[in-house]
Amino acid sequence: MFSTLGFNQEDVTNSHSFFRLVRQKKYHEISDSLYQSVVNQLESKDRVTISRVVTLIESLNLEHRRRADKIFEILFKRYKEKNLNHSLDQDLPTFRIGICGAPGSGKSSLIEKIGMSLINEGMKVAVLAIDPSSAKTGGSILGDKTRMEYLSREVNAFVRPSPTKGYLGGVSLNTNEIVTLCEHVGFDAVLIETVGVGQSEIEIDTVSDFVVYVVPPASGDELQASKKGVMEIADCVVINKFDSEYEKSCRVVKHQILGGLHLSRPKVDGWRVPVELVSAHREYNIDSIWRNAMRFKENHKDIITQKRGEQLLHGLWAYMGDMLLKRLKSESGHIYADIIAQNEKRLIKQEITPNAAASNIMSHIFKD
Amino acid sequence: MFSTLGFNQEDVTNSHSFFRLVRQKKYHEISDSLYQSVVNQLESKDRVTISRVVTLIESLNLEHRRRADKIFEILFKRYKEKNLNHSLDQDLPTFRIGICGAPGSGKSSLIEKIGMSLINEGMKVAVLAIDPSSAKTGGSILGDKTRMEYLSREVNAFVRPSPTKGYLGGVSLNTNEIVTLCEHVGFDAVLIETVGVGQSEIEIDTVSDFVVYVVPPASGDELQASKKGVMEIADCVVINKFDSEYEKSCRVVKHQILGGLHLSRPKVDGWRVPVELVSAHREYNIDSIWRNAMRFKENHKDIITQKRGEQLLHGLWAYMGDMLLKRLKSESGHIYADIIAQNEKRLIKQEITPNAAASNIMSHIFKD
Repeated sequence: MFSTLGFNQEDVTNSHSFFRLVRQKKYHEISDSLYQSVVNQLESKDRVTISRVVTLIESLNLEHRRRADKIFEILFKRYKEKNLNHSLDQDLPTFRIGICGAPGSGKSSLIEKIGMSLINEGMKVAVLAIDPSSAKTGGSILGDKTRMEYLSREVNAFVRPSPTKGYLGGVSLNTNEIVTLCEHVGFDAVLIETVGVGQSEIEIDTVSDFVVYVVPPASGDELQASKKGVMEIADCVVINKFDSEYEKSCRVVKHQILGGLHLSRPKVDGWRVPVELVSAHREYNIDSIWRNAMRFKENHKDIITQKRGEQLLHGLWAYMGDMLLKRLKSESGHIYADIIAQNEKRLIKQEITPNAAASNIMSHIFKD
Repeated sequence: MFSTLGFNQEDVTNSHSFFRLVRQKKYHEISDSLYQSVVNQLESKDRVTISRVVTLIESLNLEHRRRADKIFEILFKRYKEKNLNHSLDQDLPTFRIGICGAPGSGKSSLIEKIGMSLINEGMKVAVLAIDPSSAKTGGSILGDKTRMEYLSREVNAFVRPSPTKGYLGGVSLNTNEIVTLCEHVGFDAVLIETVGVGQSEIEIDTVSDFVVYVVPPASGDELQASKKGVMEIADCVVINKFDSEYEKSCRVVKHQILGGLHLSRPKVDGWRVPVELVSAHREYNIDSIWRNAMRFKENHKDIITQKRGEQLLHGLWAYMGDMLLKRLKSESGHIYADIIAQNEKRLIKQEITPNAAASNIMSHIFKD
């Protein structure tokens, strides 16, 4: 719908050819100039092209991933050339905000409001909604809940739900790369939404610079359970639904959370976690979230830079774990297939434990 | 306290020596007869010895794990000799019941009551309470909640809480092996408790023959959220707290769950998931759980046998994933250390993506 407005016509055509050739599996026919056009379209923030590249990143097909990686290489190179004169580490032109909280805390509407307010300030905003899929059925759990009707219509917004595909932890394997893509094509803010279910909320810290924990005006057990998570991962706490009806309980929750924060070890030294009362419904105090984020960025650039490095390594090892198991489990006659089959057999016969079987295979791979 | 009552004195002494030598790291001084004594003590269901062996299984120290695996080898061999005359697959002398449900559903008191009723029937019962530990602090989340005061005092019971040590999924890496241990030393029933948090409840299916889902008398959102989990993993649903006060809401919940089950695909063909109203507090209808379990066992031996095989393989791959990453990440100069360092460097410089870095390392390990 927007893809042909204001773009270079040759890039549009080339980009279409690129994805047609990918679809037809004619990978060897993809010329270098097609790649360049795709990257041009990305840099022009063409939402159709961004979406298609995200689909390549999320694909389980290795050939797709290889194309995505080549696109990244070009994008990385150009990005560096453009920013040659100032250090990237000091600038952090794109800020990544992770937003989590229990179902029912009103995250999605809040994110839509944050996004709209940033766009009204002239920024470009990407929203990635991590949609935990059921490990059994593979189906989406959130379903349609993450549509963000208004934001999706904005030219300066890119909204994308990502299924986790059974990868535990609430954040999908390639979220970090999709964030990186959004960053390199020039979005000013990337908002990453995840549901906080148990330990999974901790994963949000592996893809964001700043974690906002959304708490509903609740009480008793519910608050106890979420308090623990809040203390461990929040850089900012937002008590949502600060409307007339809940005003009193919001204030109670704020008081309790401040008390809990006071007693626990700070996540980032020198940063006192702010606790804000907001209302997505009334659009009250929404801008406090971005203001806090920018204050954090100003004061803790070193922490953020270090964290981004750790996040990249975290991503590498998540991929390694995934690839290693897939490859070793496949019966495609790789060099360890025999030793694995042998140990699986002994395991099923209950001659050895799973640990012993795994140790035997390991000593082969590492030639101990 | 019980360890010297009615046991062979030589085995008691030898067993103590075994664990003393392990503690002193004098592994080469551990003679074969010490191993045999430890296994004798296990087979006599000495709770102190069982506990110590479980500690070896749970240990992160490789030397400890090696001793545990040797103990298993002896145990497996003896078990087979004892059961030479009848096929193990057809007998399933030990039944494994997984019990899950949201915090507050009253799982622990229910399990204690189930355990006591089985013991009163002359059975020997092991209870493994999976205690999800915080991924950040490593601390226990359940804390003291899983003590099972009465059951712990019974000579025929073995109660053991196991921390998950940050392994996502609610079931720890070695739960399956601890279950196997309990089985091979002759417990009639192993009850495995886990908290149902999000997707983690699915993991309970990797260690049990029969999954009991405990539902409190709740309503609205809460029930909606748990219903999804119930439909996917339950072999039996138990609505707890069927006491005068909640009687009506229990019946409503039962009705809703039956409705949901009616609409969803059965987990096991030919098995209609029973929904029982029970009360741990009043000790009402507790025995229905074991009765249903035995009915399941009679009718679906083939399914259970097949599932146990899959569980062993699941355990193998869980260990493989864990070991591979630990080993590859370690800087102990293994054969892939150079290629990893090189790719980590390019990754941090943002020349390549995490996926590309992982692919490069993979092609070295598999010599593609």
